[in-house]
Amino acid sequence: MSSAWLLPEHIADVLPHEARRIEELRRILLDAARAHGCELVMPPMLEHLESLLSGTGRALDLRTFKLVDQLSGRTLGVRADTTPQVARIDAHLLNRAGLTRLCYCGPVLHTLPAAPGSTREPLQFGAEIYGHAGLEADLEVQELAIECLQRAGVPGLVMDLADARLLTGLLDGLPPKAIDAEALEAALAAKDQAAVDALTAALPPQVRDALRLLPALYGGDEVLALARERLPALPQVTAALDDLQWLATHLRRAYPELSVGFDLADLAGYDYYSGSRFAVYAAGSAGALVRGGRYDNVGAIFGRSRPAVGFSLDLKTVVGHGHVDGRRAAILAPWGEDPALRAVIRRLRDSGESVVCLLPGHEHEADEFECDRELVDVLGQWVVRAR
Amino acid sequence: MSSAWLLPEHIADVLPHEARRIEELRRILLDAARAHGCELVMPPMLEHLESLLSGTGRALDLRTFKLVDQLSGRTLGVRADTTPQVARIDAHLLNRAGLTRLCYCGPVLHTLPAAPGSTREPLQFGAEIYGHAGLEADLEVQELAIECLQRAGVPGLVMDLADARLLTGLLDGLPPKAIDAEALEAALAAKDQAAVDALTAALPPQVRDALRLLPALYGGDEVLALARERLPALPQVTAALDDLQWLATHLRRAYPELSVGFDLADLAGYDYYSGSRFAVYAAGSAGALVRGGRYDNVGAIFGRSRPAVGFSLDLKTVVGHGHVDGRRAAILAPWGEDPALRAVIRRLRDSGESVVCLLPGHEHEADEFECDRELVDVLGQWVVRAR
Repeated sequence: MSSAWLLPEHIADVLPHEARRIEELRRILLDAARAHGCELVMPPMLEHLESLLSGTGRALDLRTFKLVDQLSGRTLGVRADTTPQVARIDAHLLNRAGLTRLCYCGPVLHTLPAAPGSTREPLQFGAEIYGHAGLEADLEVQELAIECLQRAGVPGLVMDLADARLLTGLLDGLPPKAIDAEALEAALAAKDQAAVDALTAALPPQVRDALRLLPALYGGDEVLALARERLPALPQVTAALDDLQWLATHLRRAYPELSVGFDLADLAGYDYYSGSRFAVYAAGSAGALVRGGRYDNVGAIFGRSRPAVGFSLDLKTVVGHGHVDGRRAAILAPWGEDPALRAVIRRLRDSGESVVCLLPGHEHEADEFECDRELVDVLGQWVVRAR
Repeated sequence: MSSAWLLPEHIADVLPHEARRIEELRRILLDAARAHGCELVMPPMLEHLESLLSGTGRALDLRTFKLVDQLSGRTLGVRADTTPQVARIDAHLLNRAGLTRLCYCGPVLHTLPAAPGSTREPLQFGAEIYGHAGLEADLEVQELAIECLQRAGVPGLVMDLADARLLTGLLDGLPPKAIDAEALEAALAAKDQAAVDALTAALPPQVRDALRLLPALYGGDEVLALARERLPALPQVTAALDDLQWLATHLRRAYPELSVGFDLADLAGYDYYSGSRFAVYAAGSAGALVRGGRYDNVGAIFGRSRPAVGFSLDLKTVVGHGHVDGRRAAILAPWGEDPALRAVIRRLRDSGESVVCLLPGHEHEADEFECDRELVDVLGQWVVRAR
């Protein structure tokens, strides 16, 4: 029996060498969020399907495992994303009038992998700010995302900014079925110029030309200048470009080592997002390690349409790009009934050391720990010495 | 809409005040396990049903949520217990000849609550030692369980010891259908003397009288003396009593503050356990906070019947009995574009402080943090002072 036989496709055990690093990363991320004043919440893995999928669209529905609740006969879902749950908590349970910073970390399950090599069980971490419509919240969330990756030792960070209002601004006022918005979004995300050209062929010239320009609006500050020159000066478009400039200026000032650019066609999920968007890449990462942005309407289904901005990441992906090691050093100790030996082992453990006891008959075995020291009896005293 | 409407029965959100304490407890437990040389593993939430339920019996099957895998058409289960997964990892993935200490921490889901007030989503932590048949491993696991609860600040710990071999020893040699073992196990666990008397009525006198005595074998050292005097001196029974005496002696020596006793009728799941068993209670706890013991055959289905001993607990239960607080202190800071202000906030955060920024318009709001200090401009210098 191989482990491939034992586990479903795109599902894997995390073994000690990697689990140690993921646990360390988990603490780093939660501590970074706490340093920013984020309060931790733990929504359940299981919820009634309708609250789990509230306002999230078809993609999340297809990705969500469904079960029947023996207690109620109702359909439950296993969460595939934590953000709708956090919006529910903000709306119902905390129900504060003011600003609320929340964070979370836990597994989510997907019926199908998000990409060919992806796990169906990401370990999702995220942080969100509710109740502040101003750009200060967008900036704070972006800063937290960068600091999370920096603390995790991810090198060569690149942040790409976009704004959902570019698309909503341009499409605003068109007849409802003038364009297949889902297809357009996919074509833009893939920078598939031919598809964008085809999809926009029947649109009014000003909107058509603007949409066709978006795939090229990828790069540094010249992108914003070109966008101001060539995109129509609609209120939403102008507001988006102003905000992007402000965010980029602040990010560059705070993180000179960060490469900040623009990717104005990166608008996947634009019906969910309502303002600034961002994606953070690492040197050599195929996809974004972090995605986030503003989604002011996420709590509407729970009767509370609060400003909201946040991001999420998968620890199992990020750990492969960072430099998180985790403690492995340990002290090797003999096993014995001597109360003095047992007391010194306990004191060492209480002081934060790992002490690996050699049970009788296992004197020559190895495990994940690196025992760089040992506990030995020197003239009747138990002392720790280098090995 | 109330939260009761929103969430299924026996499923709850964990809000900031409690989440903070559970996260702190999680770190305490994982650090205690690491101090004992346990390597962390993270088995998946989802597995093929047959490997998830391997050798675990009907109770776990009924408690396990089932799903269909869209990728394979096979039935998957959401884990209701982590131990069978860890046995699989020991047997297949690590596949070491020697001793292996493993620990884990993550959610499990139950179709039905284990008790009337229980959650259907415990956060399970556990530790296990594979590959050592000697009592040293039983003792180490018991010590780790105690140290976990002590580090969590749980007061008034009581440890009850039992041994599965008492029952298997007494029933050994009887015809297969001589007794309804499941009913007997339940009657013993409930100390239902009338039920035990009825169930054992047709058994040979020596076995009958021994089984009928078990519910009374609850208390201190007098229990072991009585058991030696009154139970038949069968090899398994004698070995069990000798081992219990050895374990109790060592536990009392190492933890004088711990109350160690015997509950020889506590044999639930005896077909799973194969040797010493233990349960740890706290002052005022209705049920056991920790259960564990030896289950040498747990990996047999994976082709590797290794000695195994371990325990598990639910963090959501333990946190209510311990004194885990978690850091709440924070520094309140104004929001501003001043690079000096932003730099000092970042330095404070990097040094481990929580800094809550007051975004414009939110100057008079409160959250979970206790801002005992504030960052203020004193003569052009940003300084932290008490509030």
